[in-house]
Amino acid sequence: MITVHHLENSRSQRILWLLEELGLPYELKIYKRDAKTRLAPPELKKIHPLGKSPVIVDKGEVVAESGAIIEYLVETYGTKAKGELAKLQPSVGSAEHRQCRFWMHYAEGSLMNWLVMKLVFATIPTQPMPFFARPIARGISAAVINKLIDPNLNTALAFMEAHLATHEWFSGANLSMADFQMSFAVDAALSRVAKGKHYPKLRDFKKRMESRPAYQRALEKGGPTLADFQVKQ
Amino acid sequence: MITVHHLENSRSQRILWLLEELGLPYELKIYKRDAKTRLAPPELKKIHPLGKSPVIVDKGEVVAESGAIIEYLVETYGTKAKGELAKLQPSVGSAEHRQCRFWMHYAEGSLMNWLVMKLVFATIPTQPMPFFARPIARGISAAVINKLIDPNLNTALAFMEAHLATHEWFSGANLSMADFQMSFAVDAALSRVAKGKHYPKLRDFKKRMESRPAYQRALEKGGPTLADFQVKQ
Repeated sequence: MITVHHLENSRSQRILWLLEELGLPYELKIYKRDAKTRLAPPELKKIHPLGKSPVIVDKGEVVAESGAIIEYLVETYGTKAKGELAKLQPSVGSAEHRQCRFWMHYAEGSLMNWLVMKLVFATIPTQPMPFFARPIARGISAAVINKLIDPNLNTALAFMEAHLATHEWFSGANLSMADFQMSFAVDAALSRVAKGKHYPKLRDFKKRMESRPAYQRALEKGGPTLADFQVKQ
Repeated sequence: MITVHHLENSRSQRILWLLEELGLPYELKIYKRDAKTRLAPPELKKIHPLGKSPVIVDKGEVVAESGAIIEYLVETYGTKAKGELAKLQPSVGSAEHRQCRFWMHYAEGSLMNWLVMKLVFATIPTQPMPFFARPIARGISAAVINKLIDPNLNTALAFMEAHLATHEWFSGANLSMADFQMSFAVDAALSRVAKGKHYPKLRDFKKRMESRPAYQRALEKGGPTLADFQVKQ
């Protein structure tokens, strides 16, 4: 049976979603974040030297890195899926395949970097420091967020919104691996960046994802995705 | 013919390396970074809405995101390659394939985030600010680098070093897509993090990569990879 080493409120929620869609049995080992630092606990290093989540173990093989886990699961258990799940891995050479590949890399290779960096800078002024340092810390964080991070995130959100105006799911007409890989970033972007702004297509994507019974079962088992979205651990 | 939109001193250098290995003709459009901000010029947005590099155009298709470009090029032009290049894409189901997939995602999905974040924090205290703010800016940057970034980078370097002690290339005995994808991060990690520390296997990987004629041709055409390694543009 597949074992999922799952860190609460983390990127591993989407792995549970995929497993639930595929109807695969799995054992869930839930790790709590350190109450103070919100970082992953050191026990995760016993599973994989990087000490990150998600990590799965299947047939004795340890598979780490979200994109690699999703590809592994679909390749191993998803190629015979039917109906809505028949195109989790679109056919090589198709437009859907090209889109799927782009979003599989874009989610963690570009978008998440900006989201994590924003979180780090937003956290800095809340840390313990002498009273006279705090306004300066606030100023530095605001400058980096306003000049570097937010312009990149606004471009990213506009780009995804435009894409979803002509594609129902990230790869096209069908649910694919890319939607699982992108789910966490879309969730984080809408909750941390887009407050008050209208991204109807992105919000609609999130609604459709959340309305899926498999997504809801994953939430019940793994807990909320974002309650305290933190730096990747 | 393939067009490569190449930003100087950037992640797109590895795309040139792959094109040179495959012996593919390509047209190179070189973009200069802004002299002051070191960011990519706005012209790149005309090629792809995210305004990032690398981007390639082949047969009218725009392909962005390093990992996706590498996979596209190998799938389209690399499956019949011979000799040393015969396993750029290892066989599905093999140990090499699992390794290749992991490193394809790990390079940009995990490792580069820490490297970019380190660069951003190292840059903060060098920005214009009132004299009384600078020591505080230095203190904040040092705290984040020491407590969050460097521990993650040290774990990453030790992990890669241990991997290369038992694998000649990142996927195993043969050069694969993963080596192209990892090349920039290894280069950046050795030059920005490992100063004075010994990572003989990583340094040996870098030497073997740099000794390849295709790598040298790419350098001649695209210019140095790291002269001024900057935030992803």
